Amino acid sequence: MNKFLCFLFFVTGVRFQAQDVDSITIRNIYNHYLSNSACYSNLQHLTKKIGGRLSGSPQAAQAVDWAKKAMYAAGADTVILQPCMVPCWVRGKKEKCELRIKGNKPLALNCTALGSSVGTGIKGITAPVVEVHSFEELDKLGEKQIRGKIVFFNVFFNPNNIRTGTSYGETVKYRGVGASHAAKFGAVACLVRSMTSVADDEPHTGNMKYDSTISKNKIPAVALSYIAADALHKAVAQNSAATVYLETHCENKPDVLSCNVVGQINGEVHPEKFIIAGGHLDSWDNGEGAHDDGAGIVQTIEMLAAIKRSGIRPRHSIRAVAFMNEENGLAGGNAYAAYAKQHNEQHIAALETDAGGYTPRGFGVDTAAGLYDLVMKHQHHFRPYFTDRIEPGGGGADLIALEKLGVPCIGFEPDTQRYFDIHHTAADTFDKINKRELELGGAAIAALVYLIDRYYQN
Amino acid sequence: MNKFLCFLFFVTGVRFQAQDVDSITIRNIYNHYLSNSACYSNLQHLTKKIGGRLSGSPQAAQAVDWAKKAMYAAGADTVILQPCMVPCWVRGKKEKCELRIKGNKPLALNCTALGSSVGTGIKGITAPVVEVHSFEELDKLGEKQIRGKIVFFNVFFNPNNIRTGTSYGETVKYRGVGASHAAKFGAVACLVRSMTSVADDEPHTGNMKYDSTISKNKIPAVALSYIAADALHKAVAQNSAATVYLETHCENKPDVLSCNVVGQINGEVHPEKFIIAGGHLDSWDNGEGAHDDGAGIVQTIEMLAAIKRSGIRPRHSIRAVAFMNEENGLAGGNAYAAYAKQHNEQHIAALETDAGGYTPRGFGVDTAAGLYDLVMKHQHHFRPYFTDRIEPGGGGADLIALEKLGVPCIGFEPDTQRYFDIHHTAADTFDKINKRELELGGAAIAALVYLIDRYYQN
Repeated sequence: MNKFLCFLFFVTGVRFQAQDVDSITIRNIYNHYLSNSACYSNLQHLTKKIGGRLSGSPQAAQAVDWAKKAMYAAGADTVILQPCMVPCWVRGKKEKCELRIKGNKPLALNCTALGSSVGTGIKGITAPVVEVHSFEELDKLGEKQIRGKIVFFNVFFNPNNIRTGTSYGETVKYRGVGASHAAKFGAVACLVRSMTSVADDEPHTGNMKYDSTISKNKIPAVALSYIAADALHKAVAQNSAATVYLETHCENKPDVLSCNVVGQINGEVHPEKFIIAGGHLDSWDNGEGAHDDGAGIVQTIEMLAAIKRSGIRPRHSIRAVAFMNEENGLAGGNAYAAYAKQHNEQHIAALETDAGGYTPRGFGVDTAAGLYDLVMKHQHHFRPYFTDRIEPGGGGADLIALEKLGVPCIGFEPDTQRYFDIHHTAADTFDKINKRELELGGAAIAALVYLIDRYYQN
Repeated sequence: MNKFLCFLFFVTGVRFQAQDVDSITIRNIYNHYLSNSACYSNLQHLTKKIGGRLSGSPQAAQAVDWAKKAMYAAGADTVILQPCMVPCWVRGKKEKCELRIKGNKPLALNCTALGSSVGTGIKGITAPVVEVHSFEELDKLGEKQIRGKIVFFNVFFNPNNIRTGTSYGETVKYRGVGASHAAKFGAVACLVRSMTSVADDEPHTGNMKYDSTISKNKIPAVALSYIAADALHKAVAQNSAATVYLETHCENKPDVLSCNVVGQINGEVHPEKFIIAGGHLDSWDNGEGAHDDGAGIVQTIEMLAAIKRSGIRPRHSIRAVAFMNEENGLAGGNAYAAYAKQHNEQHIAALETDAGGYTPRGFGVDTAAGLYDLVMKHQHHFRPYFTDRIEPGGGGADLIALEKLGVPCIGFEPDTQRYFDIHHTAADTFDKINKRELELGGAAIAALVYLIDRYYQN
């Protein structure tokens, strides 16, 4: 054997051996999730026994207790509670929205108050409706045509975008700050078409914000279901005397003490360095928070069990993070970053899973600190699992504060097609979860964390 | 400008222009499917107005009439009916399967007769049960322990396979020829665990065959639901005196005349050469045949509309094929190939979509006749649509006969995770279809047919 061949043999041998260990370990992780994991039963508990768990609610507090226990059961060496103050918005009695046209029976329009919105109170609001399709159109109409009226942002979710998140990104501003834009011209309330392409009668809630730089006035804001929005559009087009009666009982109560729940497996070589993967523990109150984001919670808690039971001894400390208050404030994300800064914790990578428990497609990975390059070197490991779509750039709402500290972030990307069918609705329930899809997502996350832990150059 | 630069400019210019035309055309195809297609409403009609449509049934005949009209409505230049004789298996009265243990109340086990099976008739069969987990185990037990008994093939669907079709492939032989193997040793009936990893109470039917080379005796064969199989396993393990009462009323009636429905757009340059894409029009009788394979039917019928309305003028003739009798005989697939041979039709490529209307992943493409290489050259066009997993080797049951004639075949591959949750069950209904996933699958198929038509070298 000549030297060149000998060298080749040696190098190739080492590489094959390393590949084999990784392939086998990743296969073990997948077997754990698909055959022995508590992913699905944990989610059943979280959604059916606890249910919707908006920040500040008793259910959110129950979810904290449950998550702590579930993390220990999954094999966490320690569970840290990171306190944070969260908003406490309560919906109160069910909303009422009625289309009223003289001589006709009132038509009930299915609606949901938007998070953080003020309510109309028991008196309700009755006013004519002005339909607009953009902020520009609203600005053109101006105060003369808006004052005293209800503004209806009737903006469609574009079905032609392939990633549904793109359509969400295009329309969510009307939910977010539509009320302030309308209030600027003296509107008395704000209605938005739900952010979905599904023509059903489920209204989609979500957070809004009163932007005092646009208007100091706070007017009630609600979302209409797709069908209700269609009905209102038709009525307004046919009858300029159509009015809407709106009655919402939501209110913002004083902030409440809550916390993130952080389950940790201590690293063997660099326990002071961290790789984290998490989702958010809070959810909207109207559904069960199954896909958003119970799925992310149980997938990442299970990562602890997969690591322990696959016999992996991580070099760095690994954390499953159940963030609090993603939906209406990001207090948990901010608290996590503040804690990391205060304790001088170095984070190698932070992953968020908050796009539903659907069949996995891949990951978006920050190019910062060489993380994208590291992951791309191991892309082939994800091909047998149909999860090899690795794209540059990633993160999540709960990671914004960490990213500002320079932590390279990752977003887990499941298939997006069904997400906005039920997003923020009463239909985001456990029965919408497919067990295998949920488990495959968790396994992909655990496999990625394993590879980063193994190959990160300290 | 020197000659080299000039050449580069010309070549690059042409290439860019061609790429642009393709990107734009494919985008138009997708827009058609996502915004203006009849895919979803067609499927609603096929599943809700016609319903389950087993070969030889009145519903299958209705489906033929409907498909012909739908193809003309989609823009077919002509619709060809290709006659074929199909089996006519009828289920008759609902099956009964009861677990009987002395001193206990009989326990109903949810079951479904397997297609092509003989029935027990009104008298039913009562016998002790022998549980086995493989043909090898059955052979070891032999006649002494099998004669006069009911054989129960309790073989689990492996949850660890990533493609669920792999698990199906591993277990379907017990459904297919389990009865003949059991009959060889004198068994009086055959039970199989349903081919699924979902622990619910839906039994999964599917075709079986009496293999006279194994046994001349025809014994009744049924599938038990996952829960029923668990219950029977437990009973047999705990009580050797447990018996099962089985009553099925299915029978094989004389063959019936039916047909394939073939919608054609005539090619402008090579009308005598064909590219086809199809699914199967028949379905099992217990559900609505939504995913299997109503989805494939409406996706490929819509291809005609997408081509016509996107202004594509195909070089070759394009056909949407609604095959008859995929589920229990392949008479339609054979008839199509015989027709092609008889009329001396040259087929450039044949695609089948029969894996459900789920979110698309890609295609399996025959390496024969350079088809795989052609498709791979255009793989990048599918990346924006998350459908760029192109793998060598492909086809489908309806294409077996065409493949034997040397036609290069393609299998459309949607995500497989949910398929065997409902495959061949009463739960394969329209509400399990996601509109966007269905449409994206159809668009991917139409886009691939467009590219093959454009770039195939005659």
